[in-house]
Amino acid sequence: MRTIEWKNNKIKIIDQTKLPGKLEYLYIKDLETLWHAIRELKVRGAPALGAAAALGIYLGVKDTDKKNFKDFAALIDKTAKYIASSRPTARNLFWGIERMASVAVRNKEKPMSAIKKLMFREAEIIIEEDREACRKIGDFGSVLLKSGDSVLTVCNAGILATIDYGTALGVIYRAHEKGKKIKVFACETRPLLQGARLTTWELKKKGIDVTLICDNMAASLMREGKIDKVITGADRIASNGDSANKIGTYGLAILAKYHKIPFYVAAPMSTFDTEISTGKDIPIEQRPREEVTELFFKKPIAARGVKVYNPAFDVTPHELITAIITEKGIINP
Amino acid sequence: MRTIEWKNNKIKIIDQTKLPGKLEYLYIKDLETLWHAIRELKVRGAPALGAAAALGIYLGVKDTDKKNFKDFAALIDKTAKYIASSRPTARNLFWGIERMASVAVRNKEKPMSAIKKLMFREAEIIIEEDREACRKIGDFGSVLLKSGDSVLTVCNAGILATIDYGTALGVIYRAHEKGKKIKVFACETRPLLQGARLTTWELKKKGIDVTLICDNMAASLMREGKIDKVITGADRIASNGDSANKIGTYGLAILAKYHKIPFYVAAPMSTFDTEISTGKDIPIEQRPREEVTELFFKKPIAARGVKVYNPAFDVTPHELITAIITEKGIINP
Repeated sequence: MRTIEWKNNKIKIIDQTKLPGKLEYLYIKDLETLWHAIRELKVRGAPALGAAAALGIYLGVKDTDKKNFKDFAALIDKTAKYIASSRPTARNLFWGIERMASVAVRNKEKPMSAIKKLMFREAEIIIEEDREACRKIGDFGSVLLKSGDSVLTVCNAGILATIDYGTALGVIYRAHEKGKKIKVFACETRPLLQGARLTTWELKKKGIDVTLICDNMAASLMREGKIDKVITGADRIASNGDSANKIGTYGLAILAKYHKIPFYVAAPMSTFDTEISTGKDIPIEQRPREEVTELFFKKPIAARGVKVYNPAFDVTPHELITAIITEKGIINP
Repeated sequence: MRTIEWKNNKIKIIDQTKLPGKLEYLYIKDLETLWHAIRELKVRGAPALGAAAALGIYLGVKDTDKKNFKDFAALIDKTAKYIASSRPTARNLFWGIERMASVAVRNKEKPMSAIKKLMFREAEIIIEEDREACRKIGDFGSVLLKSGDSVLTVCNAGILATIDYGTALGVIYRAHEKGKKIKVFACETRPLLQGARLTTWELKKKGIDVTLICDNMAASLMREGKIDKVITGADRIASNGDSANKIGTYGLAILAKYHKIPFYVAAPMSTFDTEISTGKDIPIEQRPREEVTELFFKKPIAARGVKVYNPAFDVTPHELITAIITEKGIINP
């Protein structure tokens, strides 16, 4: 099962808004559909967005008949800006775009057809690198888990957030493969319930013991001594280790510290933004109010017209993070 | 507007499961309907449950033709046990039952008809005392708020949790009446969304500035300096001040401490359980899994058969509570 891949000249993704009800694939052949798929979280998760961006750039240029590099580069730029406008927080989205653009620039003397081929190859490499990075993250991270551990996670940093293995959940999959007994508690992750819809779905599929909780139940579990470790993914990590991730992560980090529970972030190096020194500079996406006031845009659950605060992410300062698990090893901030 | 009252020989309640869509009343004339109304949260909130219990006991005995006190007392006992089995955590439920039973015992020499009258009177007194207690809690608590304050609250500790004024929200209403500008952030309160459905509804009705958030957004707001105080209700308070309240309250208390924000509990004296020394002994109600896995029992939102942890309450230890606001004054634990 792959979250995202290139198939028959189209981007093939699992439509994650259909889960856990249906495993349905979406074939994307134009940029607008891709933009909406990203915006509406049909494909989501920072590493998967890196791949989506890379394939998207290729999708944007593959059929052009531009004859000179200046025009070709302008098209890349336009495509890049468009894709980048879909979601502002995930570093990997911009990283994917930048890698694709720089392949073109490095090969600008070559014919357009050759550049296109190299760009396609780069997207393939990005995808392969993600698969490998997740497995290495799993390797490094699994050492931190011992058999019998209960791990709390938030949102979905698994197969569905990457190509096919996961970051935070990759650590759990690897520990499980090594024969360690791991129990997972999944925060449902309001408002869009990625934890309930996606994380419980893929963990069950993988045969991992998973229990679903509402986000506000985490503290209670910790107090009862039922959580040994917290592992989350990240959408962007500043140079000092401050990590933006799904809204609620910061709160979990404080709760973990209070209960003296290690709090780990698992993410590939592509999530680091070295141009940003602290979390204060990470842009936080504000999402539509209806995500909060209407469950799946169907039934109103709040007083009509009530004001809503709906940031998609928060920033966890490095002092609350025990370690960051990457494909290069474990970093203690 | 009254949450619960005696009307035309029936218990009249606002059916809170219909809010915010419809303001609908339910007339209850038998104990089984009352039991289900409590169990299914058609009437909820610790102080309102005190009144529901009192009226429920009266409902259970008013038409009996028992001729001697022993039989009459046995009926009270049976009724009490039945009502008490609806929900285990809220102290006020048991307190209401005990007050009604003790009126009967104190007057056991009187004819049954006289005892019934005295019991009805006791239920009326309980209701009047709640109205007064809430106003006094509001008076005492409003002193803690200054104009311009932003207050975070969870679940619903307002009109709909009491007879007609509220505890935590009563503090806000009183400050508002005194001309203070108060802004409220309401945690939606998963799984049953009392914050989203009830708190935003009644605050808007009262003309108070309210913003709805998902529970996992509270930490982020605190970090941004947007919360000056946290005020919650309580379902049971142990002798040492440990307070059971809606699940998520304990986590908010930790987050408040971390951000150096005062955390207040507002509750009438009837919420105190002096027979319990610490929060460890407070029984915590576990609720059905479907509350978490299906939004309003309609649409599955999690992998089929996933395990669920769904406690209705948690306990906030006294050291995390800045003060408890009661109708007798402010207690610093």
